[in-house]
Amino acid sequence: MHILELIEKKRDKKKLSKEEIEFIIKGYTNGSIPDYQMSALIMAIYLNGMSYEETTNMTIAMAKSGEILDLKEINKTIVDKHSTGGVGDKVSLILLPLVASLGVPVAKMSGRGLGFTGGTVDKLQSIPGYNTEISKEKFIDSVKKIGISMISQSLDLAPADKKIYALRDSISCVESIALIASSIMSKKIASGAEKIVLDVTVGNGAFMKTTREAEELAKTMINIGKLANRETICILTNMEEPLGYAVGNNLEVKETVKFLKGEMPEDLKEVVFELGAYMIKLAGLGENIEENKQKLQENILNKKGYEKLLEMVKNQDGDITYLQDLEKFPKAKYIKEITAKEDGFIEKIPAKEIGKIACYLGAGRERKEDEIDNSVGIVLNKKVGDRVEKGEIILKIFANGESRLKEAEEKIKEIISISKERNKVKTILKTII
Amino acid sequence: MHILELIEKKRDKKKLSKEEIEFIIKGYTNGSIPDYQMSALIMAIYLNGMSYEETTNMTIAMAKSGEILDLKEINKTIVDKHSTGGVGDKVSLILLPLVASLGVPVAKMSGRGLGFTGGTVDKLQSIPGYNTEISKEKFIDSVKKIGISMISQSLDLAPADKKIYALRDSISCVESIALIASSIMSKKIASGAEKIVLDVTVGNGAFMKTTREAEELAKTMINIGKLANRETICILTNMEEPLGYAVGNNLEVKETVKFLKGEMPEDLKEVVFELGAYMIKLAGLGENIEENKQKLQENILNKKGYEKLLEMVKNQDGDITYLQDLEKFPKAKYIKEITAKEDGFIEKIPAKEIGKIACYLGAGRERKEDEIDNSVGIVLNKKVGDRVEKGEIILKIFANGESRLKEAEEKIKEIISISKERNKVKTILKTII
Repeated sequence: MHILELIEKKRDKKKLSKEEIEFIIKGYTNGSIPDYQMSALIMAIYLNGMSYEETTNMTIAMAKSGEILDLKEINKTIVDKHSTGGVGDKVSLILLPLVASLGVPVAKMSGRGLGFTGGTVDKLQSIPGYNTEISKEKFIDSVKKIGISMISQSLDLAPADKKIYALRDSISCVESIALIASSIMSKKIASGAEKIVLDVTVGNGAFMKTTREAEELAKTMINIGKLANRETICILTNMEEPLGYAVGNNLEVKETVKFLKGEMPEDLKEVVFELGAYMIKLAGLGENIEENKQKLQENILNKKGYEKLLEMVKNQDGDITYLQDLEKFPKAKYIKEITAKEDGFIEKIPAKEIGKIACYLGAGRERKEDEIDNSVGIVLNKKVGDRVEKGEIILKIFANGESRLKEAEEKIKEIISISKERNKVKTILKTII
Repeated sequence: MHILELIEKKRDKKKLSKEEIEFIIKGYTNGSIPDYQMSALIMAIYLNGMSYEETTNMTIAMAKSGEILDLKEINKTIVDKHSTGGVGDKVSLILLPLVASLGVPVAKMSGRGLGFTGGTVDKLQSIPGYNTEISKEKFIDSVKKIGISMISQSLDLAPADKKIYALRDSISCVESIALIASSIMSKKIASGAEKIVLDVTVGNGAFMKTTREAEELAKTMINIGKLANRETICILTNMEEPLGYAVGNNLEVKETVKFLKGEMPEDLKEVVFELGAYMIKLAGLGENIEENKQKLQENILNKKGYEKLLEMVKNQDGDITYLQDLEKFPKAKYIKEITAKEDGFIEKIPAKEIGKIACYLGAGRERKEDEIDNSVGIVLNKKVGDRVEKGEIILKIFANGESRLKEAEEKIKEIISISKERNKVKTILKTII
């Protein structure tokens, strides 16, 4: 087998076999295939695509390039949940304790935020004391003991994916359905998932800009799941505006606690309940989706979801008094209300721009090494489609610096629009099984 | 300007501007653009193509990446001739002294052979003493004094092309019309050509396998010529079988001398006269192609072409007594005749395989550092379409080693075919102005 022939094959739109793909991934991981050959191949894949079979073989080869986490000890079906990213996306924080409270085992490794999308690990770390870097043994033990653990991705999972992703990023080959799908799925497989529920976000604040693209990505991942024997379900959700009301680390933790105590923003509730109902189903704990949603509702009302969150945080050395008294969380120095200039309906609160402004205020990282400010961000008072009157508060900016506040204020005024007609989009666009 | 945006543009089938292409070529030549980014871009160009304008801008940028030979001193229109390569291709050796004898100035830099195609420099060097590495000053002086000089490409012309060609070779991106065209034309422009006659070979022994491809390449080069203000004419010639009878260095020099003394194989004559007639025209020494061919014929009959060859060889320290007495050339130790096994017409003498066998016998290099054996090769007795009777000689193998001879003999028997019907292809497939 020679890499030149394999590049030629993909260049000429021919299919690569399982053995050929394994040869490529192994060779690139160990350095025997240099960057310049891999980048030519990646561009050929970007332009000529890959079949589901090729994409699956690539996914599995990447998953196998490093350690594959063995969660068999837990002795239950491990259902993983993953989102393709968004703004104000605190779904994992809410959903995972909630389903854990219903007996779905949760062994979740999350990433940090980069750019305008937040990361679950950063949000967890805004709870004083919470340790996201516990050992693999304690991780597995926690799931066995209390049914849930959420940690950061510290293991060297799917190193081939890491190397290929960095290369794609440096040759303008990020936005390829086949490559995105295999990147996500390889990490899920490497992290020990047996079944997978995916939140595929769509729109301004998401990676996928159109429903058509998102559907293609979803179908690709579902097919990889099928071929790799990891049942996968995709929920396509709207990411035109931020999810829920809060954007920013401890602001989102506060919203999480309120949600689990019953104060549920409509869009966030829809997403949490849809994903949760399918997680229960995949875990083998309930076939009927509507009934599963009722179970979720019950565990909101009886606070079992909230208690599971406290249990998890405590188990990982977090200070639960912050969750019990939200006023304890550090607050931003400046809070600025942005009000409506006219009567009408909120037309746009573009998620990406909101995410970027929150990041600029200090809620996220522009570069990997940046420090995060947990108290800053944006909290909406109104959502797209809501009626507003002139002078009513649309949102509040939380900042710790005057000049950043001022700049954020100016930017926000530019991006929010009000119209005379109500134009409300759906939250759940599609569920693909 | 950022390389990522430029890769993205080409990836998305958008056009690159002159400035963008200059940025890329400059950056890649000086190393600020790394191989892995260039190879992604090259693959995108391979798959999405380039417009004539982009190809021309790339050609000029590559030509300008090093020294551009200034031939203004010669004070005449410099017409360059180039072939895309073939087997038994001694056209330059014959044609250039012949047109020089009619007043067309010839300042020719040629390459060495690699793989199955021979190189003009290797053929010239099989004339004892001939110096292909004279100084730039002597080169120009020779053209001024005797109207002709043929040397090897020793200057660092179009270094960007050299670097890009090597990269293309290592990422399976050689066979791209736009990239081949710009590679050829950049070297022609860098070597000081004002007008260019191109022999675009087609078929088994050529780079271009079909007339359609060759036509596309020809049109691309003509368009580059137009946009770069270098009038270019392309002659598409058949390279299914070797050109003329001889394949191998001193064997081809002998055929050259015989040709210039009037012993002209039909196919070789057609190619030499067609190219020659257009060279005379482009040099401004005769508008009428048929009349130009008559002039060429005259200078065969009056031996002025032959005398010009002697003059050139002498001027570059070659021993002309070898040309005056062809028996002086070193001869191969073994000569093996291959005869027909049946009556019929020669159906195939595949050029590429013949070239490979000649190379294997020692006439060419498999690697750059290989030594050449000037006396070995193959001399045909019959050409495709010729009638043969059983037992008649089809060709002779010239070898210096018994085992190589034997292997060559076996291979040749496999590749030559005889049929009951005559099937003769044209030599000149098309002339594109």
